[in-house]
Amino acid sequence: MELSIQDATILAAVIAAIGLVFAAWQRTWVLQQDAGSEKMQSISSAVQQGASAFLSREYRAIALLVVVVTAALLLLSAIPESGMSAWTALAFLCGATASGLAGYFGMYIAVRANVRTTQAASRSLNQGLRVAFASGTVMGTLVVSLALLGISLLFLFFTKELEAMQAASALAGFGFGGTSIAIFARVGGGIYTKAADVGADLVGKTEAGIPEDDPRNPATIADNVGDNVGDVAGMGSDLFESYASSIIAAISLATLGSGIAASTEAQIFPLLVAAAGLIIGLVATFLVRTEEGADQEQLLAAIRRGIYSASIAVGIAVIALAWWLELGESVIIATLSGLVGGVLIGYFTEYFTSAGYSPTQNLADSAGGGAGIVVIRGLALGMMSTLAPVIIVIAVTLIATSATGLYGVALAAVGMLSTLGITLATDAYGPVADNAGGIAEMAGLAESVRERTDALDSLGNTTAATGKGFAIGSAAMTALALTAAFITALGAALGESTTLQALVLDPRLITGLFLGALLPFIFSALTMVAVGNAAQQIVEEVRRQFREISGLLAGENQPDYERCVAISTDSAIRQMLAPGVIAVAVPTLIAVLTVLGRGNAIEDYVSATTLIGVLLGSLVSAFMLAVMMANAGGAWDNAKKFIEAGALGGKGSAAHKSAVVGDTVGDPFKDTSGPSLNILIKLLAIVSLVLAPLIASGA
Amino acid sequence: MELSIQDATILAAVIAAIGLVFAAWQRTWVLQQDAGSEKMQSISSAVQQGASAFLSREYRAIALLVVVVTAALLLLSAIPESGMSAWTALAFLCGATASGLAGYFGMYIAVRANVRTTQAASRSLNQGLRVAFASGTVMGTLVVSLALLGISLLFLFFTKELEAMQAASALAGFGFGGTSIAIFARVGGGIYTKAADVGADLVGKTEAGIPEDDPRNPATIADNVGDNVGDVAGMGSDLFESYASSIIAAISLATLGSGIAASTEAQIFPLLVAAAGLIIGLVATFLVRTEEGADQEQLLAAIRRGIYSASIAVGIAVIALAWWLELGESVIIATLSGLVGGVLIGYFTEYFTSAGYSPTQNLADSAGGGAGIVVIRGLALGMMSTLAPVIIVIAVTLIATSATGLYGVALAAVGMLSTLGITLATDAYGPVADNAGGIAEMAGLAESVRERTDALDSLGNTTAATGKGFAIGSAAMTALALTAAFITALGAALGESTTLQALVLDPRLITGLFLGALLPFIFSALTMVAVGNAAQQIVEEVRRQFREISGLLAGENQPDYERCVAISTDSAIRQMLAPGVIAVAVPTLIAVLTVLGRGNAIEDYVSATTLIGVLLGSLVSAFMLAVMMANAGGAWDNAKKFIEAGALGGKGSAAHKSAVVGDTVGDPFKDTSGPSLNILIKLLAIVSLVLAPLIASGA
Repeated sequence: MELSIQDATILAAVIAAIGLVFAAWQRTWVLQQDAGSEKMQSISSAVQQGASAFLSREYRAIALLVVVVTAALLLLSAIPESGMSAWTALAFLCGATASGLAGYFGMYIAVRANVRTTQAASRSLNQGLRVAFASGTVMGTLVVSLALLGISLLFLFFTKELEAMQAASALAGFGFGGTSIAIFARVGGGIYTKAADVGADLVGKTEAGIPEDDPRNPATIADNVGDNVGDVAGMGSDLFESYASSIIAAISLATLGSGIAASTEAQIFPLLVAAAGLIIGLVATFLVRTEEGADQEQLLAAIRRGIYSASIAVGIAVIALAWWLELGESVIIATLSGLVGGVLIGYFTEYFTSAGYSPTQNLADSAGGGAGIVVIRGLALGMMSTLAPVIIVIAVTLIATSATGLYGVALAAVGMLSTLGITLATDAYGPVADNAGGIAEMAGLAESVRERTDALDSLGNTTAATGKGFAIGSAAMTALALTAAFITALGAALGESTTLQALVLDPRLITGLFLGALLPFIFSALTMVAVGNAAQQIVEEVRRQFREISGLLAGENQPDYERCVAISTDSAIRQMLAPGVIAVAVPTLIAVLTVLGRGNAIEDYVSATTLIGVLLGSLVSAFMLAVMMANAGGAWDNAKKFIEAGALGGKGSAAHKSAVVGDTVGDPFKDTSGPSLNILIKLLAIVSLVLAPLIASGA
Repeated sequence: MELSIQDATILAAVIAAIGLVFAAWQRTWVLQQDAGSEKMQSISSAVQQGASAFLSREYRAIALLVVVVTAALLLLSAIPESGMSAWTALAFLCGATASGLAGYFGMYIAVRANVRTTQAASRSLNQGLRVAFASGTVMGTLVVSLALLGISLLFLFFTKELEAMQAASALAGFGFGGTSIAIFARVGGGIYTKAADVGADLVGKTEAGIPEDDPRNPATIADNVGDNVGDVAGMGSDLFESYASSIIAAISLATLGSGIAASTEAQIFPLLVAAAGLIIGLVATFLVRTEEGADQEQLLAAIRRGIYSASIAVGIAVIALAWWLELGESVIIATLSGLVGGVLIGYFTEYFTSAGYSPTQNLADSAGGGAGIVVIRGLALGMMSTLAPVIIVIAVTLIATSATGLYGVALAAVGMLSTLGITLATDAYGPVADNAGGIAEMAGLAESVRERTDALDSLGNTTAATGKGFAIGSAAMTALALTAAFITALGAALGESTTLQALVLDPRLITGLFLGALLPFIFSALTMVAVGNAAQQIVEEVRRQFREISGLLAGENQPDYERCVAISTDSAIRQMLAPGVIAVAVPTLIAVLTVLGRGNAIEDYVSATTLIGVLLGSLVSAFMLAVMMANAGGAWDNAKKFIEAGALGGKGSAAHKSAVVGDTVGDPFKDTSGPSLNILIKLLAIVSLVLAPLIASGA
């Protein structure tokens, strides 16, 4: 069947528009729900204000950087020899704006859905699930629709205006824009959420002995704000970017490639798979509902029904599309390998982090040996848990490339992310349920309501763990596809043939690998220290308020919530800059040195080969660290909850105290450093792809 | 100047023999020293017996594997198509034997020097230093001499009998033998020492509240045995192997190489540098002495005087040798870059781990925030500390390769390790001083004696940290040189011309990188869990003895030391096997699949390119992890000691309790998992080099 790029991009754009309408409709539905008592609304309003304040500070800080990068891209394109198109700057702006909007609207609805979920949960568990999940759906659908809309329209435009390599580079500008927002949103949001969480717990739970989310704790509102800015806005920008970049990588490889990839059909196939996934995701959200009086198992079954149905339907759609476009079975194999790989990584993540399986149970058991032993065991668990994801990524890579070459890797990433609408909905649902519980506690609602919100929250923790595994796996495939696109884009610049021996032993490749492997460690160190610093400030402020505000612990006086919100905000904004700037600066610097060094002595030490080494080295190093951190963090969290549920002496026992230490270490692991690494590898690769024409210029 | 291979190898062998004589003389001197009171001798004798029992169990277990591998090498060489020489098996046996002997004799003297150091310290600090350092000198000299002797004789023999690639592979057999012992000695010894240490501390110090090394603690003897089997025998085998492998890699690259490397002079230069370093090291040991009544500063200055003088003298010798052999300044630059790089890595290791600098002081300060914060900060410190070593390794690699190509990397490794005799002496000195303190405590000697042994011990901790950085740095350079030798040896098998693009995007290279990066994580997880398991058994045994042996805590009855020794031994031997076998099995399996897959479908998924990816991926991943673990562990240890010395409330304060948790995590980091990674990367590379003729066969 013949389908032109114009037809396909317009079709994808129309489907994306339908997604936006659907998201708007869900938003309206959520806002129509009962927002509960005045007290509940005032709590929710404090969270809303805190979240808005943070996001507006964050966006203003990022806006400055966006302007600088846009100006730099325009300047570069003004130099004819650079080979860069001015449209790259436009695409960058579009990507940054779309990512920012997705984060903003997702958070907008999340901070309004929380109190409505609490109120709905006071009626029944199913009602609570529906409201929380609907707000997640708004976020999920919005992310997917904005990404698809942006890529479709830009692709349509660029194929008319630019030649192949420039088009690929310009389209990568869209992903670059999204990633630039994502790195700051993830890092900034991650620092905020964990600083507030750790700070609130250390003084509130440990020192003052008051329960979590107690209204007397001055950091409670900041803690609830953190859930939204980190887990909703941060996660949304992150996955916006993986999703967009996977499609961009596939289109780029098809545009630049050879063999099966060098056809119009191969260019539009990833767009159509994404569009099909979007529509299927919308329909599948209706499957996520359960009976009144459902238990935890049934809730999980409801969510799984939605995700698995969507996966199967997308699988069928992939087969149908490939047949329709006459692309043959090889693209089917490549795309489905990613789809299946994503589900498998999710399964193994759950295995290693859920209290329902032996690894986390054994970790909880080891808590009897003291805090040191829990930390050692948790780190070992995290390290061991890298085995399955690596084997899966290796298998997907080999299957996909043997089917359709490197284009296959990009297709695998597209396949893995094709159900993102619904998987992200289950992710974004978590913080809403968590907040709903906080509001129930702070507003002093009945025990039965809190029990229901706890059930919803616990479900959110399970889906969050799976979602994290999925985010890492898809980030690795996407980064690999982007790297492939970058190297392919360099084309002739790298084209001279030589011996395998000389290439592998090129010291620039080797030093690049070392430098690349180093970056995730430095990046993690910076973000972990940032959380520690920010938490320390919160701890001091909470202690000060307990000391200076009379009658606070007795419940006679209100704490000053806003101070804690302001401290978290300031600290997060200030400390998110260094890691983000490093991630952009390193590939840029190497690219500049490559250009400046051409034909002189610098060339012997730094070249495009160095950058390739950096991309590959950071990819493997970050993948290991990210999986280790996410799974160790998840397992510590659930081991602690397992003990709190009554095992090994329950709350307050020595084992519980040890488990809390593990959880404290795990917090920045799983919610700040680990997830930020996903973006680091994509950002390094996409900056390289954007700069590919510059690097290739004059070669 | 003309010097034949025969002349040079015989010269090197003679110098090695002089080294052996010197070691024997130092041994005799140590044994002549006063061994103290009967009580001290009986304690020392218990440590001797425990150490011997462990080593004989360990060697018996390893012997079985050595026989299996020797048989496999012989079998392989019996197949004419394999291209392997039967002499590889002989070299393997020689290497394994030499490494085993170095470990055995080093430990033999260490467990006899401990009590003599205690007795000497009861006279003066300088006397104690001299005895402990002399025993370290025995070990250091022995390691260097045995390695140089073995390589010289085998090289002389192989150049007469075999053609180039076979000679390189057969010579690598010597390194392979050494590495095979080293991996088990490091892992087994590392598990033993930390299990006994953690077990003794957890129950003794924390639960029963008795001091370290208290004779009432049933795990005290096991703890002292552990220092010897882990830090003396394990470290000795490890560095034997780095030292031997660096020389082998340089000779191999010169034998196989082109350009400057393809000359007789280039082949014998590394041997002569090593021989010069040996002699210089012997002389420099005489500089390590101090005045009666010297303080800590002066002790450190004495040791530094020895090491720095040796480094400068070796530098001069390198210049003289290169001039004599008419090799030009390029080999001087390459060799000296390694020598300087090693010193710099040692400096930065000290900066990050010594309580004299801000990183460790800040870590100690953070202990006020609780155990979780200390762990986070320590991990972040470890991650951040990877920056300097990576930059140094990159700089050395670029300088060395731009001077003389990949041969330069091997020369840099030889340069870095050229002063091994004396640096290893300062390393091996540490456990002797530590043991001496334990004996002083257990024998109830005067406070002043204990103070002197504490000063000696504290000095040992500083030199141990520097030594660890040095061991990691040299392991990375050696592994890189071995990888280069392997790829060069494959030669024609990889000779087909290709493009950078095709190579870097070869899915086998990429999946190899992932697999390689995975191995250090799995390896670390296994070793950390092994320490945890073994420590748990010790904890239970110590608790049992406190419970069941009446009057034990009152000092009326003796504990059953031997049970703890037996438990540590059993557990360490059992658990050292899996990690060691994995390290040998993975490259072997890939080599076999490469051979079997030639010409059929397997080739698309696994090939020599996969193995190259594994070597490069594991190299960078293990280097990051090893540096992080060693430095985080060292910093936690010293932060705890800094607090114990009176900072932040001193012993027993909340900050101290938190710091103890950090130290517990750091123990397996710095003494088991981290150092084992050094050997992992060398073992992967040397197995590949040994199997190079097989992989190249029929290509």
